Amino acid sequence: MRQDVFHRLTAEGLGTALLVCTVVGSGIMADKLTEDVALALLGNTIPTGAILVVLITIFGPISGAHFNPAVSLVMAIRGDLRWAELAPYVAVQSLGAILGSLVAHGMFDLEILQYSTTSRTGGAQWFAEGVATFGLLLTILGAVRFRSESVAVMVGLYITAAYWFTASTSFANPAVTIGRAFTDTFAGINPGDVSSFIIAQIAGALVAMVLAGVLFAVPQDEAELTAGEQA
Amino acid sequence: MRQDVFHRLTAEGLGTALLVCTVVGSGIMADKLTEDVALALLGNTIPTGAILVVLITIFGPISGAHFNPAVSLVMAIRGDLRWAELAPYVAVQSLGAILGSLVAHGMFDLEILQYSTTSRTGGAQWFAEGVATFGLLLTILGAVRFRSESVAVMVGLYITAAYWFTASTSFANPAVTIGRAFTDTFAGINPGDVSSFIIAQIAGALVAMVLAGVLFAVPQDEAELTAGEQA
Amino acid sequence: MRQDVFHRLTAEGLGTALLVCTVVGSGIMADKLTEDVALALLGNTIPTGAILVVLITIFGPISGAHFNPAVSLVMAIRGDLRWAELAPYVAVQSLGAILGSLVAHGMFDLEILQYSTTSRTGGAQWFAEGVATFGLLLTILGAVRFRSESVAVMVGLYITAAYWFTASTSFANPAVTIGRAFTDTFAGINPGDVSSFIIAQIAGALVAMVLAGVLFAVPQDEAELTAGEQA
Amino acid sequence: MRQDVFHRLTAEGLGTALLVCTVVGSGIMADKLTEDVALALLGNTIPTGAILVVLITIFGPISGAHFNPAVSLVMAIRGDLRWAELAPYVAVQSLGAILGSLVAHGMFDLEILQYSTTSRTGGAQWFAEGVATFGLLLTILGAVRFRSESVAVMVGLYITAAYWFTASTSFANPAVTIGRAFTDTFAGINPGDVSSFIIAQIAGALVAMVLAGVLFAVPQDEAELTAGEQA
Repeated sequence: MRQDVFHRLTAEGLGTALLVCTVVGSGIMADKLTEDVALALLGNTIPTGAILVVLITIFGPISGAHFNPAVSLVMAIRGDLRWAELAPYVAVQSLGAILGSLVAHGMFDLEILQYSTTSRTGGAQWFAEGVATFGLLLTILGAVRFRSESVAVMVGLYITAAYWFTASTSFANPAVTIGRAFTDTFAGINPGDVSSFIIAQIAGALVAMVLAGVLFAVPQDEAELTAGEQA
Repeated sequence: MRQDVFHRLTAEGLGTALLVCTVVGSGIMADKLTEDVALALLGNTIPTGAILVVLITIFGPISGAHFNPAVSLVMAIRGDLRWAELAPYVAVQSLGAILGSLVAHGMFDLEILQYSTTSRTGGAQWFAEGVATFGLLLTILGAVRFRSESVAVMVGLYITAAYWFTASTSFANPAVTIGRAFTDTFAGINPGDVSSFIIAQIAGALVAMVLAGVLFAVPQDEAELTAGEQA
Repeated sequence: MRQDVFHRLTAEGLGTALLVCTVVGSGIMADKLTEDVALALLGNTIPTGAILVVLITIFGPISGAHFNPAVSLVMAIRGDLRWAELAPYVAVQSLGAILGSLVAHGMFDLEILQYSTTSRTGGAQWFAEGVATFGLLLTILGAVRFRSESVAVMVGLYITAAYWFTASTSFANPAVTIGRAFTDTFAGINPGDVSSFIIAQIAGALVAMVLAGVLFAVPQDEAELTAGEQA
Repeated sequence: MRQDVFHRLTAEGLGTALLVCTVVGSGIMADKLTEDVALALLGNTIPTGAILVVLITIFGPISGAHFNPAVSLVMAIRGDLRWAELAPYVAVQSLGAILGSLVAHGMFDLEILQYSTTSRTGGAQWFAEGVATFGLLLTILGAVRFRSESVAVMVGLYITAAYWFTASTSFANPAVTIGRAFTDTFAGINPGDVSSFIIAQIAGALVAMVLAGVLFAVPQDEAELTAGEQA
């Protein structure tokens, strides 16, 4: 018998809320303390990477710790999540993400309900989101396949890198993108730019799913574990 | 037979002293070396996260490595710490925390006995402390439940994130709050603001305890270990 | 039966592409956001170290996750890679590296095809590349020998350090060097300076291989696992 | 049968050389790239912490990976290192440390043989070195006792913290102190100030040894592994 639905949805919603609260809150803090944007981005990156490891570790055993509709969709297609659960998962992830922004505002004594005015649009940004989400899914599916106990750390490290190597700072998550539309601070995104980001994210996720289906499709006992250990 | 009281209290006191010594000392160092406050906060965050992993690893097997009255209180309520030990634990944690500040001053050639003049007060700050301690207890109880060998790393990563995503830089610890009242440097807090912080911290801890009691209450063998592995 | 050639070459090519995409992309991002070159280097270092851990973890079981002709050469000499596979490995690594630069340009809306004008030459730089690659191979061979499950983390940490302690910021990889010739951004290297770097890298790798052959040549059960545990 | 003397001394010498090369080299790099001293210290801290994890992992099984006469002395007193090996260990550690400085100079095209003119002296600095080395030995002895496979990570994290929370940036190592006298760069120390540092370091190490002998003296099966798991 697996975790019941209440536990699973609570974990997804709470986890996504804490994730977005960290992304938005650390963005506000960093932006407030420095005028150097690279330093602000570092102050945004390190907390996000760190909290992802924590949240996936403590919620993973309950709900899978997706916190991300693109991940849930891929898991449903792969048969790792029941189709009937996909919509509730996406709903609580999205609501949790919005809640996360509001909680961050409360902590920093800002207007609770806000909408971003930060434009993030154009082909390069969309391509960046596609690449970012492609890499995220490849990371998750590879880690689940070969080193399942390290998924949390791998996702944290991947996002740490992706904040910097993608032009969009790697949202890579439709729910987080929605949540970040509700903050007119460092991490925000104009609500009008959200849908294009989500399309790019899902496209990147699906490409990764197909590639991972081929690339990681080997019997586990044949897989070798370390660099240089090919027979 | 478990560790005797002397070992346990020594571990709690020494561990809390080294923790506060790191928080205060790195704050002094960072503040001295730069005028960029975000960079100073980073120079405060990284050492604190790192030392937490070390201290919980080496003192955890002796005393549980709480270093935190809010954690000890929750453990007592859950039956994981004898009620008779709660007061001694809190006492040595608080004394250790004060000692930590004094040692830091000694190393930096400052007046040994100081009191902070940094005001940290108001509803947003208290809300932030509540959220910070809520998250800390959720992290500890979740990690103890699902991945007990990783508690040290999870606490280090959580605090690394919480320094940035909470408006108060996440004291999240009544003993540390008391210790930080004894330093008029970067990490200080006005003694008059301490009690409100402690109330907020305990409130956040208790909410997390209740939620964790529900959320993590599943037989271990039913819990799944990685993202995407729901049956 | 080991992974077939298609899987292996895809893993090497894709992994090297994502590695260079991270190196080049994070360099562009960091350079764009700050005028402090140390901060830009930090914004280049952290993502590179992080992505290496991820890529070696998810591709290691398929191809060995060399992503580096100097590593593949050493593995071939040691008998850990078939000689017939060396040329294809080097080819896909090099092509992947170039592709990585192009993808980074696409994400940042820059001219896709570029050539670096950054001069990196002279005896000190070559000596630095030799030392950097010597250390990298020593790290890989030592980790494979004594703690094979940690190769990914060790390589990530080593490169994090080597970015800073070598005067050349540690390319330490002929394929990455070639890929970085194709970008006129922070991470670039003048095409005319590439061949000297590669010679220095291979020299450093070979010295490490010989030393490791002697130093790590002990039966595993005789090797002791932790500091201070000599009998 | 344990590793022979040649392997052991090579590992200690080479490891200490690479450690000091990283400390000095990253100091030069950081100092060259920024005028913000906190940022330079961060560029010195991160590589040092990272390389320590690597070096202890790959050399630990051969020699114990002390790289530090204060550690070797404590190990000899505890009976974990033969007394006859102490002098050779200290000798190769010291020579390796000096070599590390010279190699760093070579990579950065500086005068190979230098002596520091940076004064580091006075009671506060000595107290800081005592505290730093006390903490280092407590970390090592605690980790060896309770989580021996994590010694490398714990030392890396401890030094990362100690760079910032001690006023002296935590040399905590007589051999490294000697090596750093041979560089007139960011990480240097005036040769005349070396002996006081070493005395303070050894004092701190011995205090930690005595305390650890009491505090960690419990049967392993009685030791509990995680926070909050007291029976």
